[in-house]
Amino acid sequence: MSRRIRRTPYTDRVEAHGVRGFSVVNHMLLPKAYGPSVEEDYWHLREHVQIWDVACQRQVEICGSDAAHLVQMMTPRDLRKARIGQGLYIPMIDETAGMLNDPVLQKLDEDRFWLSIADSDILLWAKGLACGMQLDVQIKEPDVSPLAVQGPKAGALMASLVGDAIHDLPYFGFAMFDVLGTRQLIARSGYSKQGGYEIYLEGSHLGAELWDLIWEAGQGLNITPGCPNLIERIEGGLISYGNEFTRANNPLECGFERFCHLGNELDYIGKAALRRIAEAGLAQRLSGIRFGGGRTPPCGKPFTVTTPEGLPVGQITSGIFSPRLGSNVGLSMVANSHWDIGTSLVVHTPDGMAREATISELPFKDS
Amino acid sequence: MSRRIRRTPYTDRVEAHGVRGFSVVNHMLLPKAYGPSVEEDYWHLREHVQIWDVACQRQVEICGSDAAHLVQMMTPRDLRKARIGQGLYIPMIDETAGMLNDPVLQKLDEDRFWLSIADSDILLWAKGLACGMQLDVQIKEPDVSPLAVQGPKAGALMASLVGDAIHDLPYFGFAMFDVLGTRQLIARSGYSKQGGYEIYLEGSHLGAELWDLIWEAGQGLNITPGCPNLIERIEGGLISYGNEFTRANNPLECGFERFCHLGNELDYIGKAALRRIAEAGLAQRLSGIRFGGGRTPPCGKPFTVTTPEGLPVGQITSGIFSPRLGSNVGLSMVANSHWDIGTSLVVHTPDGMAREATISELPFKDS
Repeated sequence: MSRRIRRTPYTDRVEAHGVRGFSVVNHMLLPKAYGPSVEEDYWHLREHVQIWDVACQRQVEICGSDAAHLVQMMTPRDLRKARIGQGLYIPMIDETAGMLNDPVLQKLDEDRFWLSIADSDILLWAKGLACGMQLDVQIKEPDVSPLAVQGPKAGALMASLVGDAIHDLPYFGFAMFDVLGTRQLIARSGYSKQGGYEIYLEGSHLGAELWDLIWEAGQGLNITPGCPNLIERIEGGLISYGNEFTRANNPLECGFERFCHLGNELDYIGKAALRRIAEAGLAQRLSGIRFGGGRTPPCGKPFTVTTPEGLPVGQITSGIFSPRLGSNVGLSMVANSHWDIGTSLVVHTPDGMAREATISELPFKDS
Repeated sequence: MSRRIRRTPYTDRVEAHGVRGFSVVNHMLLPKAYGPSVEEDYWHLREHVQIWDVACQRQVEICGSDAAHLVQMMTPRDLRKARIGQGLYIPMIDETAGMLNDPVLQKLDEDRFWLSIADSDILLWAKGLACGMQLDVQIKEPDVSPLAVQGPKAGALMASLVGDAIHDLPYFGFAMFDVLGTRQLIARSGYSKQGGYEIYLEGSHLGAELWDLIWEAGQGLNITPGCPNLIERIEGGLISYGNEFTRANNPLECGFERFCHLGNELDYIGKAALRRIAEAGLAQRLSGIRFGGGRTPPCGKPFTVTTPEGLPVGQITSGIFSPRLGSNVGLSMVANSHWDIGTSLVVHTPDGMAREATISELPFKDS
């Protein structure tokens, strides 16, 4: 550890709870595992409630008279009807339509936005564009550190803290609530499909106090500390920048068609390239793959995916055994010749096994 | 581990050599420690030769008719007389004169450059500027993975591989050499003060072969695998982006005055802000601090530095015990009221100790 890999306002608490390791996202610590196993954590997340240190979801604040213009230039998603209080998942692309990030945009005001980013320095991209285009904006990383409350009991926990108004938030909506004598943004969101909320805590000095407040409120609800769960994430089809997709991928093959406006009314960086890709048709697409052969080894290096005849058609970038589905599940870009649901393929794992595989729907279904 | 935190072309070898842990730089693995202790590694580095996986020093390639213009816009260093074959350490700043990175610039041709970067996504900054300014440049991360050979015997090792021409390279100079039947860029550089070279290997598929070639050539020279050594780095005054300085710091207080051209002949982003800072005078400056009280605990969180009366005047962001100097050494920004060499201060470590401290010259001297 060093100052370069930043601690969060919650790291002291996370360590006190016996975290078993960290990853690094946006130059900041992300807890990687607690407790005995990813599987126990998975079952817990599906039934109870967890507190997650996701402060590494750093915010890029863009404000000023050109802020709305800059934000629209950075994404193919049509933001013209975006409302204050609405969070929007927005792919971000460069001039070649290569993915740069997939943040959640919080529209705080007509001229003030937060981008809650995945793992790349979008602050530098935004600043570069603003400098180059001489826009009237201010861009900074505010002192905001999201803390997530995830799982089916998250609503009950949050209501006990801030009142029943929390239940009025639509999915991805946000509002300001009284927390610890301050006004804080709370969104109905999070990196799981089990429901939950994220408190965008403004003020690092309040970190330990907020953690303790939630921890206490969760005592009757079987709360544990947690973190994004690999089994739950893959089953839910939640893809991860840097894993399933990189700058080498366009948003269409990532499955973000509905966030890509290709009409004439809107302008943004990468639009011409994206139109060319749409016209030419996709060469590959993000797909779910179910594969057998017993528990897969960890997917530290991508697994090659081939046809039964041995022709490479993809690579699994995240994969793990799902105890609920009774098979391994993985995410892979798959060539257009083999992406149909039900196609039989083979996954090659580093233990030397060739495992029977099938293209599956995302999110993965029970049977 | 996941695909997001990228392995390097050398990671398999690094693991085979028993690496004890990794850090993450530029979304890529950096080996953190081998062998029994940082101190043994320190003594070895000062006497023999080591092979370091520094592939995380990613390259940002900028080429095209506006490449030289863009690179100059990104740094206050005067590049007008830069020669092909010359590596230049260049601070990079934003419009507020805040530090964004401190890469080594390799001028490959009049219109082709590599930036060998510290830990921030300079590719996004460069692409943002180029998009915004509509420059004629191509910007990419090439398949280049530096491997360092460091220590006093590095010259002998490299000469045995590529011939005595290696001795003609000036400090920070580079040239192309025959390696493994390919032409590869080799620079006289590296993140230590013990002398050495960096091979900017182009072609990931050659990684294991290059590692083995150097390893074999080092067998008579007591070669070991290594990595940037914290004791050696601090003693040598080699500061680290994200640790000693961040976007909150300007290049003048980092000690980069000689790389900051403030005259009228040159234009670059942040110049107006930098001139204002120079005119107002510096509030703080990067300084060396020697402190006692026995071996310091690790500096995972910065140590507060105060006057003997308790007034805060700085924070140590990297600190460790130097077995050669017989005291702890640290790096800190120090307020202008207390930055004179010899000033007595106090360092507060997390074990509760208040340790007597003195401002020292950088690099740290023997007595």
